[in-house]
Amino acid sequence: MAQKPSIPKGTRDFGALEMARRNYIFDTIRSVFSLYGFSQIETPAMENISTLMGKYGEEGDKLLFRIQNSGEKAASAPEKGLSYDLTVPFARYVVQHREELSFPFKRYQIQPVWRADRPQKGRYREFYQCDVDVIGSDSLVGELELIQIVEEVYRRLGIRVCLHINNRKVLAGIAEVIGAPDKMIDITVAIDKLDKIGVEAVNAELLERGLSDEAVQALQPILNLSGTTAEKLTALRTILANSEVGLKGVEELEEVFGKLSVVNCQLSIDLDLCLARGLNYYTGAIFEVKALDAQIGSITGGGRYDNLTGIFGLPGVSGVGISFGADRIYDVLSELNLFPESLQSGTTLLFATFGQEELGMALGWAKALRAEGIAVEVYPEPTKMKRQMSYADQKHIPWVAIIGGDELEQKKVMLKNMQSGEQRLVSLDEIKNLLS
Amino acid sequence: MAQKPSIPKGTRDFGALEMARRNYIFDTIRSVFSLYGFSQIETPAMENISTLMGKYGEEGDKLLFRIQNSGEKAASAPEKGLSYDLTVPFARYVVQHREELSFPFKRYQIQPVWRADRPQKGRYREFYQCDVDVIGSDSLVGELELIQIVEEVYRRLGIRVCLHINNRKVLAGIAEVIGAPDKMIDITVAIDKLDKIGVEAVNAELLERGLSDEAVQALQPILNLSGTTAEKLTALRTILANSEVGLKGVEELEEVFGKLSVVNCQLSIDLDLCLARGLNYYTGAIFEVKALDAQIGSITGGGRYDNLTGIFGLPGVSGVGISFGADRIYDVLSELNLFPESLQSGTTLLFATFGQEELGMALGWAKALRAEGIAVEVYPEPTKMKRQMSYADQKHIPWVAIIGGDELEQKKVMLKNMQSGEQRLVSLDEIKNLLS
Repeated sequence: MAQKPSIPKGTRDFGALEMARRNYIFDTIRSVFSLYGFSQIETPAMENISTLMGKYGEEGDKLLFRIQNSGEKAASAPEKGLSYDLTVPFARYVVQHREELSFPFKRYQIQPVWRADRPQKGRYREFYQCDVDVIGSDSLVGELELIQIVEEVYRRLGIRVCLHINNRKVLAGIAEVIGAPDKMIDITVAIDKLDKIGVEAVNAELLERGLSDEAVQALQPILNLSGTTAEKLTALRTILANSEVGLKGVEELEEVFGKLSVVNCQLSIDLDLCLARGLNYYTGAIFEVKALDAQIGSITGGGRYDNLTGIFGLPGVSGVGISFGADRIYDVLSELNLFPESLQSGTTLLFATFGQEELGMALGWAKALRAEGIAVEVYPEPTKMKRQMSYADQKHIPWVAIIGGDELEQKKVMLKNMQSGEQRLVSLDEIKNLLS
Repeated sequence: MAQKPSIPKGTRDFGALEMARRNYIFDTIRSVFSLYGFSQIETPAMENISTLMGKYGEEGDKLLFRIQNSGEKAASAPEKGLSYDLTVPFARYVVQHREELSFPFKRYQIQPVWRADRPQKGRYREFYQCDVDVIGSDSLVGELELIQIVEEVYRRLGIRVCLHINNRKVLAGIAEVIGAPDKMIDITVAIDKLDKIGVEAVNAELLERGLSDEAVQALQPILNLSGTTAEKLTALRTILANSEVGLKGVEELEEVFGKLSVVNCQLSIDLDLCLARGLNYYTGAIFEVKALDAQIGSITGGGRYDNLTGIFGLPGVSGVGISFGADRIYDVLSELNLFPESLQSGTTLLFATFGQEELGMALGWAKALRAEGIAVEVYPEPTKMKRQMSYADQKHIPWVAIIGGDELEQKKVMLKNMQSGEQRLVSLDEIKNLLS
């Protein structure tokens, strides 16, 4: 038993400070979601393997964590696996509970998911996803509200961001007009890498994927489209004049931008024709959010899908959703030093005592202060004062109330400000006034 | 794909109302924990199987959900299993991170655990535990604070409860004085069932477990001890006069009751010598909390342990903890109709509109109201008014703001109280004043 215990590779323990910080992110996101009428739901950690298989491509199937059946009837029980994302369980949920739900159904989920990926820096086998979707309506108010949510969440967190927006129908239109209508997926997969590998490599990949030289050439001016959003939209209308689906995409973009100006959205938004997003179920708007002051890639992303629940037998249900990347947001807040100081300690005041009678007095005062909503600890033993003070130090507790014989007699405490080192004799009411 | 998808047996989806109710319980508990300076931590869903095996007895080992290794190096990777409870992961956490922690370490965890138990009413294969412990101190202030936490949590939830308390050292003393010092575990296992199977069956079991007739006879008056707490303690002092450990247990109980009166605890507390609690790692105080107005067994329980981390190579660390049974608390609140009405809907106001221009106005107003902290939805399309109203009904949204041509012109909305049916024309400021 001498060996220190450990946890599985790619998983993490979250200590007190990390949890306080993670909860700060989740609570911020949650309270914004609530303002827009989204309700939280939760699906089980495990799903039947038939729910998960074939939904994430061949690679994804290999990354599923499978659970061995145990207990009675193990052999005949359906196989199970840990959730790989929240999207498929959500689709399953909507189909399974469709009779109980009122549509449009606005829900969010904040839960861990598991992938048997090779662990590496910033990539874990267990990590939280934070998904918000409205399903059962094709109104672009959905897109608008998600963009407003992005604006408000990052305003509250203090992170400056730019939202990149594109539309899958525009991408389909582009594939049409460059003469490669069947290559939409290939084009999106390739140009999705533009940021990472550069235009030369993207062009090479496009040729490799079977696009003609002419098509690749025709694509270049579109990828390089510049100017204001209005200018880009005007240019697109010309470029896509012969593509019905392309024009529909432009219209959708125009409507979203129109609604954004109705609500006077202050978010920095970039109409980015090179934004493609890998996942194939998107059919309309697609988004990605990047932090302006940190090099970390996308911290939020999503889009509209027209047939997410089709895989479970309920076709034709349109929805739009985004996912906040909690781990990356955490890293951005750390890097930019944006976490509130107050998360350092949950405790406002520690009572430190010199004897049993003093400890009794501390317990009584602690009760009175907690009744005022002040988070208070009582060091549980009248041990060496140095040890009690060092406990306060380590926990970053800002105030210590010291009780010795004199204080006991005067029914006051010596209140010490741990930052400045100042201390003075105060009454219970004075503490209440100071700290509540 | 015609078959409706489903979830694994013994697992649950939590819909919007169930989640709001569960969050209400967790938030209540969490905010009380915080007042006492407990910090939240989180351990992974999966632990190395070596961490889990042998900790829950033979039966427990069988109920572990094992995870198949996948990905690279699957064959050589250590086996993993889903957490069976939060106690063992906590012990593992304390040992693994002991250098980073300040002791006494006060932590809580609210996380799901998994058991391959046969599912039945009220017993699930995935369920939340909610554990709070202070470890690294043998001061009975720990017991006191946990009892205060029980008092405050149930006061806030509005559930009338009685806390049953006993002490394992007293039970050990009883085993000694009835002449069966090596039978302490057998005695506790048997008398733990007193409530369920009655005294006759318990006595039969005690004989079966090898207690002599005399020992069982000697035990009877102790099981039937009555009177006030003070009277019981006095009687125990006499009964246990020849048992050192027994007297230590009585002293501990006296100290806890003494501290409770110092802080003027109002909780109903029963010194219950028949309380034993099944788990063998308890060594001092043991608790169970029962709801007075519902027949549902224990809704919170715990106790002191002197060697929880010994299994991971760190002996001699004393701690005390309790666990709140979230599912049972949920059931009690449901049965007694104690959930706040306000959990029915997270949304305060829905905008329902007659046309696109009205929808635009609604989006602007919604933004202004959300800035005041009011949770607002905009029905995303100006569809049939009946459908919009029925959406509000189904989601239990208490207010609907209707916007037609007249309202648009007057820059007012027709505000309808969905409960009374009353409606009147109001301005944006009037809504703000009414709802914020």
